[in-house]
Amino acid sequence: MNFLVIGGDAAGMSAASRAKRNQADMNVTVLEMTSDVSYSACGMPYNIADPDRDMEDLVVRRAEVFRQKQGINLLTGHCAEKIDPASKTVSGRKADGEGFSFSYDKLLIATGASPVIPDIPGMDLRGIMPLKSLEDGKKIKEYLKNHNVRKAVITGMGYIGLEMCEALRHRGIQVDMVKPRPGLLPWMDKNLSDEVRKVLEDENVGLYDGYEIQKIAESGDGLKIICAEKELEAQMILVGIGVNPASRIGLDAGAEAGPGQSLAVDHRMRTSLPDIYAAGDCADAFHVITGERTWIPLALRANRAGWAAADNVCGIATELPGIVGTAVFKVFDMQVTRTGLTEKEAKEAGFEPASVSIKTRSRAHAHPGSQPLWVYMTGDKKSGRLLGVQMVGKDGVAHRINAPAVALHAGMSVEAFFQTDMAYAPPFGPVWDPVLTAANQLLKKL
Amino acid sequence: MNFLVIGGDAAGMSAASRAKRNQADMNVTVLEMTSDVSYSACGMPYNIADPDRDMEDLVVRRAEVFRQKQGINLLTGHCAEKIDPASKTVSGRKADGEGFSFSYDKLLIATGASPVIPDIPGMDLRGIMPLKSLEDGKKIKEYLKNHNVRKAVITGMGYIGLEMCEALRHRGIQVDMVKPRPGLLPWMDKNLSDEVRKVLEDENVGLYDGYEIQKIAESGDGLKIICAEKELEAQMILVGIGVNPASRIGLDAGAEAGPGQSLAVDHRMRTSLPDIYAAGDCADAFHVITGERTWIPLALRANRAGWAAADNVCGIATELPGIVGTAVFKVFDMQVTRTGLTEKEAKEAGFEPASVSIKTRSRAHAHPGSQPLWVYMTGDKKSGRLLGVQMVGKDGVAHRINAPAVALHAGMSVEAFFQTDMAYAPPFGPVWDPVLTAANQLLKKL
Repeated sequence: MNFLVIGGDAAGMSAASRAKRNQADMNVTVLEMTSDVSYSACGMPYNIADPDRDMEDLVVRRAEVFRQKQGINLLTGHCAEKIDPASKTVSGRKADGEGFSFSYDKLLIATGASPVIPDIPGMDLRGIMPLKSLEDGKKIKEYLKNHNVRKAVITGMGYIGLEMCEALRHRGIQVDMVKPRPGLLPWMDKNLSDEVRKVLEDENVGLYDGYEIQKIAESGDGLKIICAEKELEAQMILVGIGVNPASRIGLDAGAEAGPGQSLAVDHRMRTSLPDIYAAGDCADAFHVITGERTWIPLALRANRAGWAAADNVCGIATELPGIVGTAVFKVFDMQVTRTGLTEKEAKEAGFEPASVSIKTRSRAHAHPGSQPLWVYMTGDKKSGRLLGVQMVGKDGVAHRINAPAVALHAGMSVEAFFQTDMAYAPPFGPVWDPVLTAANQLLKKL
Repeated sequence: MNFLVIGGDAAGMSAASRAKRNQADMNVTVLEMTSDVSYSACGMPYNIADPDRDMEDLVVRRAEVFRQKQGINLLTGHCAEKIDPASKTVSGRKADGEGFSFSYDKLLIATGASPVIPDIPGMDLRGIMPLKSLEDGKKIKEYLKNHNVRKAVITGMGYIGLEMCEALRHRGIQVDMVKPRPGLLPWMDKNLSDEVRKVLEDENVGLYDGYEIQKIAESGDGLKIICAEKELEAQMILVGIGVNPASRIGLDAGAEAGPGQSLAVDHRMRTSLPDIYAAGDCADAFHVITGERTWIPLALRANRAGWAAADNVCGIATELPGIVGTAVFKVFDMQVTRTGLTEKEAKEAGFEPASVSIKTRSRAHAHPGSQPLWVYMTGDKKSGRLLGVQMVGKDGVAHRINAPAVALHAGMSVEAFFQTDMAYAPPFGPVWDPVLTAANQLLKKL
């Protein structure tokens, strides 16, 4: 059997490796546009933060290993351009311009996502860079090395923007962040996002939310960012507005679209086209709480979906239940995390949500190192069900989110969650874990 | 209504406070044997570690606050000795020897647990001390201040012994630990307990497991601990063998016993005697996985059971599902945690367990600060159900246990747990959280 994979990132390489493990005699071919496969994309901001670290440190497994040890026909520099579902072929062009065509019995589209580049005059000037591929990361690092960057502007205030803000500040670069809509992390409860804002302000980061960039122009050795009521100067602009699913190749072939123009897949990662699967940031997923399709591109899902696609391709029926949107990121020393629905999302999904926002401590009474910790929790008044949790704080926040995430998968009520037996020792938390304290407060409103 | 509570620690004071919040006009009387209520008992080792910290820092709420602000008739120095269920009275003796008697409509036994003091010649010598009450803690701290303690012996290697070992080493005191049965943390998978052993050996702690103490004698300015094949010298002995439920007063009154001579209670914290409840370390609980009675004295359960008892006393029907035995403790820089059943416990409960023991990393590939992390996971071959998890490591272990703990409450299969959507960012973990990696390995054995 010929299993063809378009895209050699998390989902694509997970699928290719899994397929070869499942069936050693399968012909597995991967078409990767760039020269890099299997690297820790999420690690790039932390690598960029350190001028002495090599970007190659982020490579988990080299192309040769996939080729020689795993027997995967991994073709880098191969940009797939067109799928023909009728003849079951994929055609495209190599880096040197030469055309290619491959036939498949089963096809996986794992093309990932592409950074959103807004249509603003001057966006093509030198020093304006997105961060998506390892190549992008290398370019940013090279640029920082060879140019005297004293100040950078980041467009967008999402988690990549915030992680890059920390990386650049770590290198002593002044940072301004700009976005058109008002509100830092607008999905987050304001008590919590205000704490994140404070951390950024303490780092002297200029936060210009509600500022639309009208034009970017050259200015001296750098760039001028022109908004209606503000002009910012910088030697570098990082474009961190967000990403879109790189789904064009699948949609053009006639695959049904999911939310945000992603590729709609069923619980087995099958698109609407026969023998064509999709996995990773280009594909959608079912939200476990709402049962509806959603598009939340994150690394764990990409890996998991890659495995599931490969299993199904190999005849091992595998259904993924879906996601609850669990995420964590770091903003300087602040840990920011969420799982499940926001109150707004819960309302839109037909729930009757109630929420609490509490401030508690990360460790036991009087224990050294204890830090304030904020929890926002949402439940459904009709069913009593737990719907979502958000948390911020500087100590012991990140891993705390997985307990409510598991509860969301189990469809637990706030009451049942409140009754769960959690670990306690003074160095690690109060007797009542912060998520239990929040659940107790929320119960009074349900 | 007269609500009488015996014992003013976690369960007792939680119940008393909750009852007054539920019904402000209720007569709530608490009989506490010592002079201390509402302190962080689990914080004592960390306080003892620091000569400059006041033991009173551990007091969460003072007796006066309970009396004046909450209107609780809190009587310290009142040792209850006998319950007469027929006349509904509790009699006892005050610290000054004077007798007392109180009648009740509803009674809560919240007498906690008592340290096991083995019957060994010489156990009454000066410098041999248990750690259970705040008074015990103060005595130890005073002893360390006034005596030139260069070396201490700890009998027992449970979590209190291990926490005290860290505290004493922190004060520059050499420590030997002795216990009769071989094996450090014998309930733990050996791959994991070996890592804890290494940490103790790195701190030059003498570990004498499998050594029965035959006699303790005076020797110079200190004590000599005589085992069959070994003699140890020390200026202080900490008795940390374990605790027994302080259930005598209830059992004598005719209440049914639970495991380990605890007081058997139903899901509403009712003993077998009319209008008599029990909560905290003196009472048992249902194990959520086995459905059987178990006795695992821990602080969260004590607080929770205190609340539930008060609610039921006040006519607010409240059932607690039970516990899964989630616990965490710190051994120097090592975080040690567990939830659910061990393989041995699972077998005894009628499951057909299979387990895996894995070593992975606490953070993403190439991320600074990543540490090895060991996970042991047990599931049931018959049902596929997750049964238990153990984890050790120096980074990000403690809070990770609550996700599988919630899964145990939900009765999740290993497969369903493996499919849960957990948070990922390089500073906090690998893409596949260690508990997911363990679940994936375990699935191959189920």
